[in-house]
This record gives sequence, structure tokens and C-alpha cells, in this order.
Amino acid sequence: MRVPPGVSAKDFAAAVKKFEAAVGKKWVFTDEDDVKLYRDAYSPFLGEEDEEIVAAAAVAPDSTEQVQAVMRIANEYKIPIYPISTGRNLGYGGSAPAYSGSVVLDLKRMNRVLEVSERNAYALVEPGVSYFDLYRYIQDKGYKLWIDCPDPGWGSPIGNALDHGAGYTVTPYRDHFDAHCGMEVVLANGDVVRTGMGALPGAKTWQQFKYGFGPFVDGIFSQSNFGVVTKMGFWLYPEPEAYREGVVNVFNHDDIIPLVDGMAYLMNAGIMNSSTLLNSPLRFAAARDQELAALLLRTDDEAKKQLNAKAAEMKVPFWSSMLKFYGPEKVIAAQWEHAKERFSKIPGVSFSEGQSWRFPLTKEQIAKARDENDLGIPSLSIFSIGARSALNPNPTHGHLWFSPVIPMTGEAIIESQRVLAQAFKDMGQQPTVNVFPQSYHARTFVILVGFPITEDPEKNKKTRDVFRHMVKVAADHGWAEYRTHTAFMDDCMAAYSFNDHALLRLHETLKDAIDPNGIISAGRYGIWPKHLRKT
Amino acid sequence: MRVPPGVSAKDFAAAVKKFEAAVGKKWVFTDEDDVKLYRDAYSPFLGEEDEEIVAAAAVAPDSTEQVQAVMRIANEYKIPIYPISTGRNLGYGGSAPAYSGSVVLDLKRMNRVLEVSERNAYALVEPGVSYFDLYRYIQDKGYKLWIDCPDPGWGSPIGNALDHGAGYTVTPYRDHFDAHCGMEVVLANGDVVRTGMGALPGAKTWQQFKYGFGPFVDGIFSQSNFGVVTKMGFWLYPEPEAYREGVVNVFNHDDIIPLVDGMAYLMNAGIMNSSTLLNSPLRFAAARDQELAALLLRTDDEAKKQLNAKAAEMKVPFWSSMLKFYGPEKVIAAQWEHAKERFSKIPGVSFSEGQSWRFPLTKEQIAKARDENDLGIPSLSIFSIGARSALNPNPTHGHLWFSPVIPMTGEAIIESQRVLAQAFKDMGQQPTVNVFPQSYHARTFVILVGFPITEDPEKNKKTRDVFRHMVKVAADHGWAEYRTHTAFMDDCMAAYSFNDHALLRLHETLKDAIDPNGIISAGRYGIWPKHLRKT
Repeated sequence: MRVPPGVSAKDFAAAVKKFEAAVGKKWVFTDEDDVKLYRDAYSPFLGEEDEEIVAAAAVAPDSTEQVQAVMRIANEYKIPIYPISTGRNLGYGGSAPAYSGSVVLDLKRMNRVLEVSERNAYALVEPGVSYFDLYRYIQDKGYKLWIDCPDPGWGSPIGNALDHGAGYTVTPYRDHFDAHCGMEVVLANGDVVRTGMGALPGAKTWQQFKYGFGPFVDGIFSQSNFGVVTKMGFWLYPEPEAYREGVVNVFNHDDIIPLVDGMAYLMNAGIMNSSTLLNSPLRFAAARDQELAALLLRTDDEAKKQLNAKAAEMKVPFWSSMLKFYGPEKVIAAQWEHAKERFSKIPGVSFSEGQSWRFPLTKEQIAKARDENDLGIPSLSIFSIGARSALNPNPTHGHLWFSPVIPMTGEAIIESQRVLAQAFKDMGQQPTVNVFPQSYHARTFVILVGFPITEDPEKNKKTRDVFRHMVKVAADHGWAEYRTHTAFMDDCMAAYSFNDHALLRLHETLKDAIDPNGIISAGRYGIWPKHLRKT
Repeated sequence: MRVPPGVSAKDFAAAVKKFEAAVGKKWVFTDEDDVKLYRDAYSPFLGEEDEEIVAAAAVAPDSTEQVQAVMRIANEYKIPIYPISTGRNLGYGGSAPAYSGSVVLDLKRMNRVLEVSERNAYALVEPGVSYFDLYRYIQDKGYKLWIDCPDPGWGSPIGNALDHGAGYTVTPYRDHFDAHCGMEVVLANGDVVRTGMGALPGAKTWQQFKYGFGPFVDGIFSQSNFGVVTKMGFWLYPEPEAYREGVVNVFNHDDIIPLVDGMAYLMNAGIMNSSTLLNSPLRFAAARDQELAALLLRTDDEAKKQLNAKAAEMKVPFWSSMLKFYGPEKVIAAQWEHAKERFSKIPGVSFSEGQSWRFPLTKEQIAKARDENDLGIPSLSIFSIGARSALNPNPTHGHLWFSPVIPMTGEAIIESQRVLAQAFKDMGQQPTVNVFPQSYHARTFVILVGFPITEDPEKNKKTRDVFRHMVKVAADHGWAEYRTHTAFMDDCMAAYSFNDHALLRLHETLKDAIDPNGIISAGRYGIWPKHLRKT
């Protein structure tokens, strides 16, 4: 039996006995084979046993009361605890702790959908509920409600929201933390708190009014290690009447600027209330055109001119953006018409229609959907991106996500492409920057770069170095990560250094007050308990 | 010179000298006549000098650095400090502190609009900036941007957002705290923190991406006493093309249920993205019909039947709801059409058109607008409600707002009317419940009841008793306040008592950690520093 750091073998054995009494013997895992299952499936330390961050044990409670009991025991023996919901945060650390030797608090058994109100369009769930679970529950009841899900449907609405994840339908639902309403949280000492209106016994609006009375504390339990969230409410989107896609195509390099301005206007004005799919068909065409591929690697004005000529000659758009509209058929038709009017100011612009649906869909229609996530249907189809296929004979062992936030402007896209490509070159790497920024959040883009994990420890080491270099380069340009893998949390937080790291110091002040023994998720988002803090 | 409680006269004199050195002698107010100006203009203690909560002095810094200096001095001498922005939170405490003898930190001099981006539709402002200031700034620059303002335009965007105020245009802008993005906060020890992306030096998205990295702490600085907010970003609404109003009229008592369900659906689905004006024309008609007025006071089924008959006979709607649509002309026409289709299922429903505008407006058009606030134009017209007029020969000396949150359902409206009317009767009062709940927040109603302040201390005392009684009655039914006057913050917070007041205990834990000397806004939202806490 592995023992957590800073805990004596005797104390740990005593604590394990108490954990067993609290949750049942079969729900406390100390065998190496069992504990191995909590390793990060996409670990950047693959093949480096000494570097790998692993759990010492795991405990799986079934109720808030059991979570309280576990926390009281852990607090008594000062045992580091690492709560996970479904443990599927792949690319960002998965089910492995941030501090090696922690005991994983596995909340998968707490998988109850506690309430769904069709009339008031909300759900109250436990952390072990997955997007699949919630979707199935709603389908079984026949409710005309949608969920908003991130790429992999096996994740947890609570876990994803707490890590500031995003999805693909409409605002505010697609910002998963913003779409939450009310929490129940177990603190390090085992005390249970309900936030918002949940603090009012018999409250009628716990899942309807976010703020409650007094300081709005919910945010401090996201991307942190201040408590264990055991219940959370979410606002749901009433099933829209229809959906349609419209594609805007532009043919010059610099058209990205008015294209993005138009997108941002439509989003900020609520006329196009979803994310868009920004693309460069010209770059796709480079796969079959070596001359084009070579030109795309250059950043000088002459290359730009030649690329514009190429795009015109090939009749392939330099950039395209797919807009998605949800709502009554006549409304979304008018919205798309309005969007086309706006974009028609860009010389040479062309438009094409994408998919269009009227809800509810049959199974056959769902099978034809371009992307189920856009329709609020969870799936695992994202995993095809790294899988072995005819086009990809060398599948990776997973990936790390580098995800800096940049302004929602064409200039920022052009500049970040240039800067990040250069940074890759400086590190001796092929520039593999994803040229298609994601409009995950309301007013910014996220540049999402996947760094592959391999079986070669040397390559993984190099990847980690490159990752850290990219974090610094991005920060030098005023861009920083909205989320990161546990292995790089200190690096990313270090960039947020205004006034001698005043924000991190505030986080630490809160940490010391709420979790004085520092037992919860040491190191998460760069917040270490006092006894492990570097001075 | 009045001296704050718990501070020696000698220490206070020394501190005042230091305040003067920090901000300039003319910006430190200790003369009784000057300090009197910080009294609550709508005080529920009017005429009770011993009960009145008053400031001991005031300090008005001009910059973040001066705020830091003042806080350092206050922290050194343990002087209670009460920050206000424009001090216009009338009905909720105004510019007076929550703890008598506090030194008001008056931020009115910090009235700089630091940045407005038309392209990315945001503003960065200081706390002394009023809605009028920001509106004028935008008009002067000719930017096609709207602000969203609460009733009185002299308030502060920062102050209002921090007190969870709301306005009248569209989501998310009309929820003022939700529409903020990024903060600068001076802590009790004088340290300055920037939240969100502001913690990244040279950040390009401080006003565009809310969460930053790690715990999202902004919420703890709202409705609290944990810091002094010195800068805040706000998202702005790009000027819409057009506006139109549509009124839905229903003629039976119970039609309020499908009427509200329809409203809630349109809001939750984003088809009608604003607040509505819910009304009862039949109740207005009772002013000229005594038989009708008597019937409206009854709650039995027979009365309901007779009222329905009256409404039919008089052709006056029992209830009506005005929907507001903002956006491209064709889009909002389609939205109103869709809304009418939905509501047409209610038997006997009728529709009428309200105002309709295409922007920008001329001055003449603005003068004709039903309500400037709906068009993002700040005003002071709300003050006509209590003023002397032909209809109101006895103006009040202000009012207290009782503002419990109820579910957005017709049943909740009917029940809250009945319960609150009974509670008024039980206290020997004429039931004066405002029958028209406000849809200030996304998924709930606020029942807004104004309690008048008079020159008669006995009446004011009675009003305070009734107010406290109403808070309890509301809590017993699962409804509680989203905001309250400083005099009733303890009462309101006491209702949020789940698990032995776990939420308040969490607030206190945070308070003790961030402001260990307890110098900021003692008592605000029921949070007292350790040395003043009731055990």
C-alpha cells in the first residue's frame, strides 16, 4: 500500500480503516492494480515512472454525507485528497492528481439526476452524472429540453463546468460555468454549504436565481481546490424549433479582419448566439498542392499576394466561417439574411448553405448530422481525431491541450499564427499551430493546439519543454491559458503575475482560510497549501 | 470631530493627518456639516437621531494609489471604512455606512472612463463614473454602443453591478454584475489585485475574457465587504437596428399561468431576450370602480368568477405583458410573430402593438419614448413616482425596497400576492403589495414593494417592524431578498440559514482571511468582522 507524502504508514492505515467504515470496504481502493486505473491516460510523463504523478489510493463515496465523512477523516489525518467527477478531463490531467500520492476522491457513484424541470428548464445533478446520463434521462422523460455538451459525452457537467469548459449550442448554455445555478459544496472540514438560494431552507429558486444574498461565492470553487462540489444546478435550453447553418466565404488573406468583426458583431448583438466554425479551405487545399503549402509557410507581403492570387485562381476561399442559428424557422431565416447583408460589404464574399433541421430529429436524421454536439447530443466521435485510420497510421497516445485566449479580431489571429509558428521553429519544431481558433467563449478566441503524447520519453520531455516555452511566448504577447494540464498549472499561473503575483497570493489567502490543513487537490491551478508552497 | 468606535481620539487625529497627506486636505471631511451630506437620504430612522446610522468622516481619494494609501492607514489604525461609488443606492442605504461611525471612502472623484472599445463593445471605468457619464462619453465619441442602466441614471455602473442591480435592455447586459468583465480591487491591507486576464501584465483580453486562470474570484467582491473595487470592465450592447414592443392581453384570472409560461419560454429560448412589463389593467381600472376594487381584495373562487365576468364585460384585460424586442427589423418582426403564435393558445387572448423605433433616434423621438431606460438612455424620471403631483399631494421622504425573489410562474405570482397581502393585514396594514413582479433576472421575478419613509418616527418604526415581518413570512415560503437596505441586512441574511448558517459562516471565514482587522464595511450583507460578531 502506497502512503501519501507527509502521512505515517500507521496513520494512513488507520484512516483507510475509517474510510472503509464510512463508504464500505469495496469502495476504498489501495491495491496497485486498482489505483493504476486512476493514472492519467494522456500523461505527458508516459514511460517516465519517476516523474509520473500518481494516486496513493482512491475512495468512492455514494452520498454527500459520505463525502463529509471522508473529508473529516482526511482532515484529521492531513491526507491529501483529489476529487474527480467522472475523471475524463483528458488532455488536462484526467483522473490523476496534481500532487503525487494524493488519495483520489472518486465521485462516479454519485450519479443521480436529482431533478429536471421541463417547465423552468433546469437540472440538478450530482458530480458522477455524465452528459450521456443527463441526455438519456431527458430523452426517457420526453422533455423538450436540450443539454449543451463538450466534445466527449462521457464527461461530467459538474466537472466540465468547474474546469470552465464550453460547448457548441447557444449562449448562455454553451459556457458551462456561466450556465450553472446553485451549488452544494463540502468543505475540507466536512461542513456542507449551499450557495445562492440553496442557503434558504425550502428555497423555491435554488436552480433559478444565481446570486442569492451577499457575496457570490460560486466562482471560487471553479478551477481551484477550496471544496468538493456535490450538487450543481444547470440551466437548460428549451428545444428550439429549428437549426440552420450558413457559411461565409472570403478570398483574400486580410478578409479575416472584416470576417471576424462581422462574427463578433453578430455574437455581441445576440443575432448569432452560438460559436462559429472558422476555417481556411485554402490551407486544406495545401495538402494536395506543394507550391501552395510552401507559400503558406511564408509571412511576407509577396507571399500574401501570391496566396490571394492562388485563392482566386483555384476559387477556394482563403477563410470561411460557418454560422449556426437556433430558433423559430422564420426568425433564424431572418437572422441569416441579416448576416449576409452585413458580410456583403466584403468584396468577393460568397455564401453557402449548410445543414438545416427541424426538431425533434429521428435517429436517421441524427446519424446524418454534421456534428451531434451542435445539436445538444453527446457523443464520443471526437476521439476519431487521434485514432488509427487509413489517413493516420501512427495514432498518438493522447495529447496535451495548449489553449491560450486571444482577442476576437482578425489581427489577433494573424499575429498569433505568426508568433506561435515562430516559437515552434525556435524550439526546432515543425509549426503545427491550429489555424482555426475556437469561439468557445463569448468575446474571445481560444487557440487550441494539441501536443501529442508518444511512447518515447525523450519526445515527451521535449514536448514538455516546448509547451513551457509556448506558455511564456504567449504571455509575452498578452495571451494566456484559460485551462491547462495539471503538469503545467504552476507555469501557466506564473504568467498571471501582476503586482508581484497578487492574484495568486489572494488565492493562497483563500486557500489557507477555507482549507487550513491544505488537504484538497494540492497544486491544482498553481495553488499549493502552506506546507508545500515554494517561498 | 466624531471618532469611529474602537479608535482613540488621538489615533483618529493621527490617521486624519495621514489621510490628508495621502489625498489632500480638502478631500478629508470631518466637519459635521460636510459629514451630514453622507446621511441616507431615504433613512428608515428619519427623526430618530439615536438610531440613525451615520459616518464619522469621509475621505475622497482620486486614484487607485490614493485608495491604497488610505487603506494602509485605516488598516494600521483599525479604522472602519465604508466605500461608496456615487452614493446613490437609494432605498438600499444610500451613502450612509452600515456601521455607525465608519469613515466613508467616497470614490466620486475617480470618475474616469478609462477606455471604450466600439469594435469589441466594452468599457473600462472607475467607480465614480455614473451612467450619465458613460452615456455622454459614448455619445460624444459617436460610438454605436448602448449602455444598460437602472432606473436612476446618476448611479454608478460599478456600484450597481456590485449590488447585483439590473436594467431594461437585453441579456446579458441587463444583469449588471453578469455583464462585467475583469476587476481591479484594493484589499484591506492596501494591496492591489487585478482579476481575470488583468492579472497578466500586458493582457490583451482583460475586458473580454472573464475567468482568467484559477478560481473565479470576482463574485466575492459583490454584495460584500472584502475589498474596494477601483476599476471594472463592462460588456456593452452594439446599437441594435430597431426596437418594437408587443402587448399580450389575457382576460381571465388564471390566464396568468400560461401567460408567464409563454414569457419564460421566450426568455429561456432567447427569442425575447429582455425583461417584460407585466401588468393588470383590470386592477388599474379599480381606481374608478369601487365594486371592482372590493372584489379584488377577495381571494375566494366566487370573487375570481365575478372578476373574470367583469373583465369580459368591461373588455379590460385581467393581465397583460409587454414584450420588448431588439435587433434587425426583420428578425424582431419574426420574433413577435412567433410569440403571438405561442400565446394564441390562450382562449380570448388579444395582442396590441406598442412603440417601435429604428436607431439612432433624434432628440424629438427620445422625448416621445415610453421609457428611456428601455433604450439604454439614463434618466431620473423614476423619481416622479414618489414626488408631489396632482395625483399625489403627500409625497414621501423616500422609500425602502422590499425585494424578494419568486419563481417565474403564474402560480408563484398568485401565491405571493395572497401571502404578502395576508402578512400586511396581520400587521394591521393596508395590503399594498405591488402586483406587478419585475423580470429583472433571467429566470425569476422580483416582487418590488416600496415602503414609504415619513417624518413620523412612530410610523417609521412600525414600517421597520412590518419589513422584518415580511422578510420572515417570505422566507417561510421559500422566497428571499436579492438585495436589501443596510438596516435589514442581518435580518435578510438570517433567512439563509441552511446547515446552521453555513453560508454566512463561509462568508465570515473569507472576511477574516482577506480583511483580518475587519476594517471594510462592517455589517454589510450581514458580514461583521470578528470583533463585532454576535456569537
